[in-house]
Order: sequence, then C-alpha cells, then structure tokens
Amino acid sequence: MAKPLILVTNDDGINAPGIRTLISVMKDVGDVIVVAPNSPQSGMGHAITINSTLHSSRITSKDSEIIEYSCSGTPADCVKLAINELMPRKPDLCVSGINHGSNSSINVIYSGTMSAAIEAGIEGVPAIGFSLLDYRWNANFSESKDFIKKITENALKNGIPKGVVLNVNIPSVEKSKIKGVKVCRQANASWVEEFDKRKNPLGQEYYWLTGKFVNKDKGEDTDEWALNQNYISIVPVEFDLTAHHAIQELNEWNFQ
Amino acid sequence: MAKPLILVTNDDGINAPGIRTLISVMKDVGDVIVVAPNSPQSGMGHAITINSTLHSSRITSKDSEIIEYSCSGTPADCVKLAINELMPRKPDLCVSGINHGSNSSINVIYSGTMSAAIEAGIEGVPAIGFSLLDYRWNANFSESKDFIKKITENALKNGIPKGVVLNVNIPSVEKSKIKGVKVCRQANASWVEEFDKRKNPLGQEYYWLTGKFVNKDKGEDTDEWALNQNYISIVPVEFDLTAHHAIQELNEWNFQ
Repeated sequence: MAKPLILVTNDDGINAPGIRTLISVMKDVGDVIVVAPNSPQSGMGHAITINSTLHSSRITSKDSEIIEYSCSGTPADCVKLAINELMPRKPDLCVSGINHGSNSSINVIYSGTMSAAIEAGIEGVPAIGFSLLDYRWNANFSESKDFIKKITENALKNGIPKGVVLNVNIPSVEKSKIKGVKVCRQANASWVEEFDKRKNPLGQEYYWLTGKFVNKDKGEDTDEWALNQNYISIVPVEFDLTAHHAIQELNEWNFQ
Repeated sequence: MAKPLILVTNDDGINAPGIRTLISVMKDVGDVIVVAPNSPQSGMGHAITINSTLHSSRITSKDSEIIEYSCSGTPADCVKLAINELMPRKPDLCVSGINHGSNSSINVIYSGTMSAAIEAGIEGVPAIGFSLLDYRWNANFSESKDFIKKITENALKNGIPKGVVLNVNIPSVEKSKIKGVKVCRQANASWVEEFDKRKNPLGQEYYWLTGKFVNKDKGEDTDEWALNQNYISIVPVEFDLTAHHAIQELNEWNFQ
C-alpha cells in the first residue's frame, strides 16, 4: 500500500517542540509535509486572513527529507494554503499540534490547534488535533509519542467518521501512568474571567485577560473526567454547529 | 417590568453602519450598552487576546444617552471585557451585528459576529448574531429593523434554549419581499479556495485568499435554502462541539 500523505501543522509556530515531536512520530507513519505558522498563534480560534496578504517560505529542516513551509497566517490559513497551493495532492490526513497546553472542554472553541484540524475537516481531509496538558515550551512530549502513533494508525485504518475531527488531549505524566484512551464528550466547563487591570506609564488603564477554569460538569463521560483520571481523551468534534434539538422549540415562536 | 439590559457588539467595528442600525433597534427594546472593536475584525473567528494587552475607551456617541466603549480586542474579547468589567451587571441579552455580509452555513465558523454571540452564550448570557446578506459598507440595513426587533422580543419573552445562541441571516431585499422567518439547520456548504498568487516589487510571491462558496446541500430545511427563497433564517447554534453520534463508532477502535 502507498504511504499516506500527512499534513502536519500547529498553532505554537513551526519551531515549537510540540510540532517537532509530532513530525518525528508521523515520519514513521507516512510521507510528511509541514505547513505551520511562522510565529505563535495561540488563542486564534478559527481566524482567517481576509484583509491582508499571506506568504509562505519553504525552509530547510534538520530532518531534511521532509518538506516544510512556514506561513505568515493563522493555523486555518496554513491549512487552506497547504491543501490548495503547497501540497502535490490532497493529504490523506492532517494532524495538528502537539499543542503546548490543554484543548479540552470549551478550550476547543479558542484553540488554533483545533481550528487547523477543523479547517482540514471542512475541506474533506480527515484530521486530528493533539494537545499535551503542559503549556510550557520545554514540556515533555516524548511520553505521548506511542499513543499518538496508535491513534493516528487507527484513524488511517478505520477512517474518521464524515464531518467529524478528533480532539485528543494527553495527560502530562509518564507513559506508564497513562491508563488508556477514552472516547468522551466535551465537558460543560468554562473560564471565569478575571481581568488584571493596570495603568501604563501615561496613567491610562489597560487589561490582561486572565481567568480560572471552572468545570461544573460532574459527568464521568467527559474529557475533563478522563484527563483527571490519567486517561487520554478523544472527543469527536463536529463543525455543523446546529443545535438540532432546539429547532422544534424555536418553531413555536411567533414572528408575525 | 424593568427594562432588559442589552449588550450590543459586532465585528465590523464600532463605527460600522450595521451596528448603528442595531443600536437604534435595541434602544426601543431595553437599556443599551455598546462594547465593540475599535477596528474591523472580520474573519477573526473565536480569537482572543492572550499574549497582549487590551484597552477600552468610553466614547461619546451621537445618541448620547447610550454608553459606548470601543475596545482594542477581538469580538470575543469585547464580550468578555463587557460582561466582566465594563457593565454594571450581567446583561439580559447580547446582540451582535448587524454584520455586513452573510454568516450562513459554514461561515458561522469564521465569523467574528457569531463568535461574540457564542462567547456571550458560553458566559450564560442569551445571545443573537444578526447578519445582512450585503457585505458593502453602505448596505441598506433599514429594511431589516422590524424583523430584528420581533426576533429580539421573542428571545426575551420565550427565552433562548440553554447552551444555544441564534444565528440570524437576513436577505438583502426590500422588507415587503421578505417572506417570513424560518428556523433552519446549517447547510452543508463550504468555500473552495482560489488563492490569487502575486509577486511583490522584490519578486517574492504572496497570496490573497479568495474563494467560491459552494453549497452541496439540497435540503429544504437549511439556512441557504431559506435565504435563497427570501426568508430570514434562524439557526440555533451550540458550543458543545461533541459529535455525540460518532462516539459509539470510535469506541470500536483498538488502542492496545
């Protein structure tokens, strides 16, 4: 069987240790092309560049058998450019990450890592976002390599359901402490914002966005629960945002 | 009954004609506070500002009985700052728009207008995003005013279902030609990218992202169908992205 063609991207930038680990895993699975942002893009959500131009440069990597492009845009831009301009054909899989930090629960909405995967999904390319629950630049990604390979091989073999992309979060513990993989739903959790208000040297106020993550969801089928128990969580994510269950109720409203 | 407190925001910037129309409608419905970006933020998706500071200025508007703040951040930032810092209490409703251009179908994913509404929803504030199918700065928003008022009054009276925000798109035609309001699902449509590749004066390549909107969805229950028939579409949108229907299939994968 021909080797699968795999697009690797992320949101922490092409030089981040997380994407370097992901590339090293994917080299063993298929032919790899990297198209990733030239600077960190965390928190970019599904932003795209429509009022400005994009550029990309082919760079030479230490693993020089792999083609790598750095791109000026957002993670979603990178995927669009990769699939439509830079790759010789539509990839068989897109993997994004490994993100430095969690993208579990509501974080999927703000995540550049997941927006890259979702953009690939929209374009009909099976896609997985991987995140490690350690936001530090020097986080230890090596313990997660075997699991990432196993999940990727499963996705290639079984096929990811249509209209779905996978959001994989990995506890930041030794490999031997990881209990396994659980397919989960997104926990109903959110951030309680605490803006840090300061004054600049001219006396004008400004803010830093900070916050506390609060999980109100007691379910044992959620990603938060699984991660707390040292399982890897996989949430199937969809980009049809329709709340189908709400349609009937709204149909009773009176617009006359 | 006390007047509802309404947060008005958008992604085209606080001076856009669309938000001016929305403010003029909401003045008749409740007490209005405006917190909107100081510059256009189209295509920002659910981006938030985490590696930089935010600032906001109270500005004096022509309708000076209304409090207005312009904010340096993204639409999602504006909503976070409004709810947690700038407003005297949690608003009863957040409305976003009127967007200059469609946010139907897959556009909901890229939309700053909808990300503002979704952010409010995440924070427990009922929310609606309004968009007119005319991207021009001087689009005619006045024909949509009565419909926007009616939909808003319905939302306040009946309550928007929990975990759901409304994505309202309005055809750009005379009021008399609008056939009514339809509650819809998001059409399964997407953009086929066509990058416009150019060379700068130094001979380096760059791209403009362009594309063609392609609707493959023949369903007559979709927003695209309704809009093409000159109905206003309302899609209930949820921010639990879990593809619940896919969980069972993924549980058959073998991670050992």
